[in-house]
Amino acid sequence: MATMSTMYGYGEIRLYAGSASQELAKEISEYLSVPLSGYDLVEFQNENLFIRLHGSVRGQDVYLIQSMSPPVHRNLMEMLIMIDCLKRDSAGRITAVFPYMAYARSDKKDQPRVPISARLVADMIEVAGANRYMTVDLHAGQIQGFFSIPGDVLTTFHMLSDYFLRKNLQNVVIATADLGFAKKGRNFAAKLGVPLAFVEKRRIGEESRTRATTVIGDVRGKDVILVDDEVLTGASLCDAARIVRENGAKDVYFSFSHALLVPPAVEALTAVPDVKEIVTTNTVQIPTEKHLPQMTILSVAPLLGEVILRAHEGRSVGELFNE
Amino acid sequence: MATMSTMYGYGEIRLYAGSASQELAKEISEYLSVPLSGYDLVEFQNENLFIRLHGSVRGQDVYLIQSMSPPVHRNLMEMLIMIDCLKRDSAGRITAVFPYMAYARSDKKDQPRVPISARLVADMIEVAGANRYMTVDLHAGQIQGFFSIPGDVLTTFHMLSDYFLRKNLQNVVIATADLGFAKKGRNFAAKLGVPLAFVEKRRIGEESRTRATTVIGDVRGKDVILVDDEVLTGASLCDAARIVRENGAKDVYFSFSHALLVPPAVEALTAVPDVKEIVTTNTVQIPTEKHLPQMTILSVAPLLGEVILRAHEGRSVGELFNE
Amino acid sequence: MATMSTMYGYGEIRLYAGSASQELAKEISEYLSVPLSGYDLVEFQNENLFIRLHGSVRGQDVYLIQSMSPPVHRNLMEMLIMIDCLKRDSAGRITAVFPYMAYARSDKKDQPRVPISARLVADMIEVAGANRYMTVDLHAGQIQGFFSIPGDVLTTFHMLSDYFLRKNLQNVVIATADLGFAKKGRNFAAKLGVPLAFVEKRRIGEESRTRATTVIGDVRGKDVILVDDEVLTGASLCDAARIVRENGAKDVYFSFSHALLVPPAVEALTAVPDVKEIVTTNTVQIPTEKHLPQMTILSVAPLLGEVILRAHEGRSVGELFNE
Amino acid sequence: MATMSTMYGYGEIRLYAGSASQELAKEISEYLSVPLSGYDLVEFQNENLFIRLHGSVRGQDVYLIQSMSPPVHRNLMEMLIMIDCLKRDSAGRITAVFPYMAYARSDKKDQPRVPISARLVADMIEVAGANRYMTVDLHAGQIQGFFSIPGDVLTTFHMLSDYFLRKNLQNVVIATADLGFAKKGRNFAAKLGVPLAFVEKRRIGEESRTRATTVIGDVRGKDVILVDDEVLTGASLCDAARIVRENGAKDVYFSFSHALLVPPAVEALTAVPDVKEIVTTNTVQIPTEKHLPQMTILSVAPLLGEVILRAHEGRSVGELFNE
Amino acid sequence: MATMSTMYGYGEIRLYAGSASQELAKEISEYLSVPLSGYDLVEFQNENLFIRLHGSVRGQDVYLIQSMSPPVHRNLMEMLIMIDCLKRDSAGRITAVFPYMAYARSDKKDQPRVPISARLVADMIEVAGANRYMTVDLHAGQIQGFFSIPGDVLTTFHMLSDYFLRKNLQNVVIATADLGFAKKGRNFAAKLGVPLAFVEKRRIGEESRTRATTVIGDVRGKDVILVDDEVLTGASLCDAARIVRENGAKDVYFSFSHALLVPPAVEALTAVPDVKEIVTTNTVQIPTEKHLPQMTILSVAPLLGEVILRAHEGRSVGELFNE
Amino acid sequence: MATMSTMYGYGEIRLYAGSASQELAKEISEYLSVPLSGYDLVEFQNENLFIRLHGSVRGQDVYLIQSMSPPVHRNLMEMLIMIDCLKRDSAGRITAVFPYMAYARSDKKDQPRVPISARLVADMIEVAGANRYMTVDLHAGQIQGFFSIPGDVLTTFHMLSDYFLRKNLQNVVIATADLGFAKKGRNFAAKLGVPLAFVEKRRIGEESRTRATTVIGDVRGKDVILVDDEVLTGASLCDAARIVRENGAKDVYFSFSHALLVPPAVEALTAVPDVKEIVTTNTVQIPTEKHLPQMTILSVAPLLGEVILRAHEGRSVGELFNE
Repeated sequence: MATMSTMYGYGEIRLYAGSASQELAKEISEYLSVPLSGYDLVEFQNENLFIRLHGSVRGQDVYLIQSMSPPVHRNLMEMLIMIDCLKRDSAGRITAVFPYMAYARSDKKDQPRVPISARLVADMIEVAGANRYMTVDLHAGQIQGFFSIPGDVLTTFHMLSDYFLRKNLQNVVIATADLGFAKKGRNFAAKLGVPLAFVEKRRIGEESRTRATTVIGDVRGKDVILVDDEVLTGASLCDAARIVRENGAKDVYFSFSHALLVPPAVEALTAVPDVKEIVTTNTVQIPTEKHLPQMTILSVAPLLGEVILRAHEGRSVGELFNE
Repeated sequence: MATMSTMYGYGEIRLYAGSASQELAKEISEYLSVPLSGYDLVEFQNENLFIRLHGSVRGQDVYLIQSMSPPVHRNLMEMLIMIDCLKRDSAGRITAVFPYMAYARSDKKDQPRVPISARLVADMIEVAGANRYMTVDLHAGQIQGFFSIPGDVLTTFHMLSDYFLRKNLQNVVIATADLGFAKKGRNFAAKLGVPLAFVEKRRIGEESRTRATTVIGDVRGKDVILVDDEVLTGASLCDAARIVRENGAKDVYFSFSHALLVPPAVEALTAVPDVKEIVTTNTVQIPTEKHLPQMTILSVAPLLGEVILRAHEGRSVGELFNE
Repeated sequence: MATMSTMYGYGEIRLYAGSASQELAKEISEYLSVPLSGYDLVEFQNENLFIRLHGSVRGQDVYLIQSMSPPVHRNLMEMLIMIDCLKRDSAGRITAVFPYMAYARSDKKDQPRVPISARLVADMIEVAGANRYMTVDLHAGQIQGFFSIPGDVLTTFHMLSDYFLRKNLQNVVIATADLGFAKKGRNFAAKLGVPLAFVEKRRIGEESRTRATTVIGDVRGKDVILVDDEVLTGASLCDAARIVRENGAKDVYFSFSHALLVPPAVEALTAVPDVKEIVTTNTVQIPTEKHLPQMTILSVAPLLGEVILRAHEGRSVGELFNE
Repeated sequence: MATMSTMYGYGEIRLYAGSASQELAKEISEYLSVPLSGYDLVEFQNENLFIRLHGSVRGQDVYLIQSMSPPVHRNLMEMLIMIDCLKRDSAGRITAVFPYMAYARSDKKDQPRVPISARLVADMIEVAGANRYMTVDLHAGQIQGFFSIPGDVLTTFHMLSDYFLRKNLQNVVIATADLGFAKKGRNFAAKLGVPLAFVEKRRIGEESRTRATTVIGDVRGKDVILVDDEVLTGASLCDAARIVRENGAKDVYFSFSHALLVPPAVEALTAVPDVKEIVTTNTVQIPTEKHLPQMTILSVAPLLGEVILRAHEGRSVGELFNE
Repeated sequence: MATMSTMYGYGEIRLYAGSASQELAKEISEYLSVPLSGYDLVEFQNENLFIRLHGSVRGQDVYLIQSMSPPVHRNLMEMLIMIDCLKRDSAGRITAVFPYMAYARSDKKDQPRVPISARLVADMIEVAGANRYMTVDLHAGQIQGFFSIPGDVLTTFHMLSDYFLRKNLQNVVIATADLGFAKKGRNFAAKLGVPLAFVEKRRIGEESRTRATTVIGDVRGKDVILVDDEVLTGASLCDAARIVRENGAKDVYFSFSHALLVPPAVEALTAVPDVKEIVTTNTVQIPTEKHLPQMTILSVAPLLGEVILRAHEGRSVGELFNE
Repeated sequence: MATMSTMYGYGEIRLYAGSASQELAKEISEYLSVPLSGYDLVEFQNENLFIRLHGSVRGQDVYLIQSMSPPVHRNLMEMLIMIDCLKRDSAGRITAVFPYMAYARSDKKDQPRVPISARLVADMIEVAGANRYMTVDLHAGQIQGFFSIPGDVLTTFHMLSDYFLRKNLQNVVIATADLGFAKKGRNFAAKLGVPLAFVEKRRIGEESRTRATTVIGDVRGKDVILVDDEVLTGASLCDAARIVRENGAKDVYFSFSHALLVPPAVEALTAVPDVKEIVTTNTVQIPTEKHLPQMTILSVAPLLGEVILRAHEGRSVGELFNE
């Protein structure tokens, strides 16, 4: 539990829990000993959302906690309308706290005639009136540069790597199934002081849908921790688990931040034999029916709560991580 | 069928049909003899949408036709992503054509601590990169002022009133069930040269949910055309039909622009006896199962097609209506 | 008299009285026990205005009170220059308080090739550097959406309707002469628990200047309160008074917010017989020579003063009205 | 007379004459053989202006000619509303042509707590929607930097200096009564190949209103051309004429761009003996009753017309002056 | 040599060569058969740059070619001033063509309290007035999302990989020394149909400056093509060459886009034995004294020239690459 | 030494010293008894700068002191990157303090086809994220209007003129070598109560590089103080010194704000005989080797320190000068 020091500048902390982050917001509320503020959320028959705050936020320091998990577009729009509502009620400062950012993978034009939707989302948040934002493990660090407002981009890296450090596993290798995640995989390996390997998938021939999967680096006789940022259906992670096993790996662990787990993720993850443990977080709310036996869910609530507190009090966030 | 005069300024017309307006776009395409341009629309498992244009729009005059009907948030986001995509592909000019604008009823703060979501939607369209917009029968004319980009706000008023004029009904009165629609009701009555009446609903007592409905003006022995802009469940229109009947009206007609018709609209409209005809338009695509026997659907395609043509050629749109 | 609680955030309240609102500003100053701040206003021979503040507003919470009444353009420009001056003197926060907003009736394009001047005025206020605004009874609630900065749009509705409630009139009907005001008229009627009627004017024939005026609803044998937002020459209100009298009404009352009363308003209002009382407010300063015997002028100063206080202290404004 | 080459890019030239520049606009219209476009300008009883264009400007290259002469604020607002109107009618390009810019002398903070109104005016023009501007002899060249849109800042320097060159005066000296105009005075002198002198006014003592006027440089036995940019009441120019005469000057000439000539300018200028000639331009419309016998009014119409033509055709304006 | 089709929209192509790209611009000029436009560039004694165009660009389609190579800040400022100059001369469209973008590696906050300078550079280019940009091989694709204006981000990938394909090397492996480049390395390997390996550097201990370098994947007995985007001193590439050699590699090739080659790059590259060939491009101008014997410099001029042509004519750029 | 009153609003003062103003920042730090905050500044081999703050500035009131002296572009970019860094670290308020502004002389288009680089610099500072700025003796007061953010433009006028007042010189005349500085020269003369003269340089003939220099006004037998704002090579000041001496002046003094003193300024200034004293300030850091014997350097540190203090505390700056 944190102790709140004297307030200043932007009035008092106000916490609002969006539809997608009710449980997380409750945990943060408890961490901060600040109650969640009430509001009515109406969904009209034409699907249009309507919001009415129970009390005034005039001059206060407001934090709106809303993950951009499915239903993605509805949740995004709810967040934007809430920001507009807070702005027009003259909030002192509005921080959009979205522990998971949708559209983060649409962050570049790797082919012609496609959008950069993540920049669009950033612009929408700014034009709605947010003064700051807070998020966790962006798909690419560069997305922070899509915003011109300041923000706190937090990471579950310390939380997840510390968890594995405490397990004190012997003879481990870190592997990643997405080469875009290579650098972050390296950081994980370096933190644990273990080697690194890669799973590379490649299409065979122009037209073919067959893909050859190879392991680059040495996994034989080792436990493998497969790290990633976001898991949807779990397909590529499960493929990777199989190929490292075929290459002689022993136990396999999964570690990732955002547990979207859309169908058939639960089936897929259950189907892979010998996955010792699946370590993830609650940036996206995981309904009870998706809690697998070997799943460990670390909470980002203390992290977000502490950063909200420091942001409110004008204290360093970097210090939290001895940075 | 329109004849296309020589192009200039913004390259050639490119028409894109969004998910919500496939049929309407096809009609417009036929009106203009301009084929719809192709694109891939992918919906990933995390619901994120992805777009890839089949051909380049570099320097062209692009019209994206997409109504904001349900699924509202998905359709809105699809439109915004498409605009971003067109902008980043260096379109010469991008016109967002949304025959029905969602959130248009959230256009003012008639109580404290609520949003003005229609302004938010306007800002989102602008920040995505649209250069112009085109829409039909905004809930309030003032919403045009929410945009700083120019736009063509068209009306079905001429189409609908001319339809009733041609019916040559005798002894008619125009009535409206929404006092916010009073002025437009008056224009309808003036065009037909007939009297005007109002249906007023009022809550009885502070707490009670009972509402007294009264008719202001004279409907006895007359046919009544109930006019409105948008029909969701049809509840208030059906209530109004009942009360004017109770006050001695003969035949009842419904006339409105946007046929959202969300459940239980079809049941409600079917249940009202003696509704002679329901006249509406295709600004929102009406699926076949909602086509009631007494329903007449006027197409806005020639209107939109002609205005797109004039916008492209730099000719007056007002002249279309002798204005 | 209000008691000021401890200051925070934006320094101290500074009140500036623009040329058009000297008297109102004085009343607000007294309500708040905050003196008006001094400044020199010079009008050069080329009509250009020049302003010099007597003291610094650096870091302070400034409220500039200036109605946009005639001379409209000069008063508007004075307000804008003052805002620029306050901004460049590094005010902590600038609130433009204009109890009456000019150009509010130019809020939509109801015909082609016309401006939306109210949006232009909103943009001018924002580009000049105002952080917030405060106004009373906008012609259309949607105009609040023309601003992207937050604002407090107050209403004289409670003040005016309470006044009539206290008169305890029997057998009354509310009527409005402008169908665009129908919904607000309904609210008035609902508050008083009395019926509603409308005066409708309609041109006869395309070319003719003759207009037929009819009363929709029942006024016979009743006292009629004619409600509106803004009165210029009073012509349409006086016409409405005559027609309801011809339809059997007894006493007639006028109730409106903004008393522009441009010539020949005084003559016109004096000429209508049997107007029992004219109830209005001082959002626009009414010179003594326009104070008619039957005129009651309610002051908006306590309302504006209280809202300034609450805005300054970061307290709810909605609570003022039990909202 | 100019010959129009083939149009391109922004459609056709459309000329609109604002209230303040009816005559100048007519001359420009004749120069270009392009008729003035029609519009209705209504001034309501509350002074609010309303504009309705007679024909569409969709996609056209529009030039709005409106000097910011008195009534300054009304004329400025008329220009801004017209720009909004043109923008919302989808003009291809809007150029605000204001041969005289008001508030140009409020271009810096030479004391604390004052505005920079010229920047405000520039921002207002941009926010209204102008794409370009055209003006003549800005009080300070730096004001061009107040705009972020491109513009053509023309000068009457060539016109006025050529006029004096053609007079072939002997033994002349250029003098200026405003030290802020010193550099432009030097350019005038250099063009004519004659010496330069200055009239300096200085307050005597802190409180006193007495001013000592001295001549710096040699004027004895010479004809003096007093040059300036803008003349209001003519007071300082007439003072300067007197002091150079006292210092032995012979004939005195006045040369300035903007003839505001507000009362008592005509009386003052008439009262100075021996002013041989007053040479000015029609950037501000000079009513017949202010045409003094010794006044020569050069027209800027051919200059503005030619620049409009070149701007329209995408040809160099600098070449006009061999630059 | 390209043939120019008929112009439209933005007038004619105007090419300007910035100080940093004189040779490349000349090649592009020859490719397009469009002469370079002249301008004076003065560097005052206070280092301030001043630009004067020889001819007008009014309404023309301007391409300014200027790499952001050292002297970086001077070249960047020269580009920005040039853009301002072109904007204020009313260019029809301004495209900033910078084949190499400085500060692209400062694209995210991978530690607290650091800037994202690449976003700053993007904003500077936009605020200066560029309408579009064109660049080559951005350090991270996401940087395209830092711009809100559209741009063409080209790649030397096809040029470089085709070059190696044509060499028809046997038994090759692609390796990369920067894990952030892993995905692009994979694309290279996939194009050539060869395996992939990684060189990983890791600090040993918290304080130590010793780094352990390991090879992940198999390079023994193979030729290795080390690929990267930008080479400064060449240190990390030379280190990688040594380590793959120690791990049994045969010939080593270097392939990279941007040849910054700052001291002691030439010495370092010369010192590595058995580097068979260094293949790079002229996005950064390589002075003759840095042309090493084993260096092959491919020109991006035909690529940029062709894209400029297609951008000008409103034709697809993607088609160039069968995309 | 100043006493700091209680803080409010923007947290605590944080002072950062940029590379170009290390000494000045130290003096300001001492004046305010606020230590300089630490940061790492790395210059990579590709010249790119990188900044890392030692501690958090979250919510604090930050002043970044950095003159835009040579190396101009590097120092400007360092300032912009620092501002971006401070913004992204969520500073409460960022004030860019640049005692000397580069590119201030590029403040207008006095010929066609040239930039207004000073506006560009102002825009760059704003887009980087500065909330306010502070500078000294802008080349033209109008440049303050290039900024839309508020700023404090201070002047050394009081400091320099008081210095000369205290010298109590008899029989003095103020002269200026730049007619653009005429008005400020007049203010200097008025403050000292002495006459004014001008040195005018004029080109002879169109092509010739010969210039005729004349003195306007009377300097014979008088001491002359030559005043200017910025001295680069000192050439024009030294020329002016010679010509006033040739016209009979006695002692010559130089007084100017910004001592750029680029080569061969030191040689030039040393070469002019009889220059009694050179009075300047440390807005630009003057290295010891440029301290000439007759040079007096007044420090702007107390002025900047006091204004920082007042800006921080929300107190008037104008009062400092009894304004």
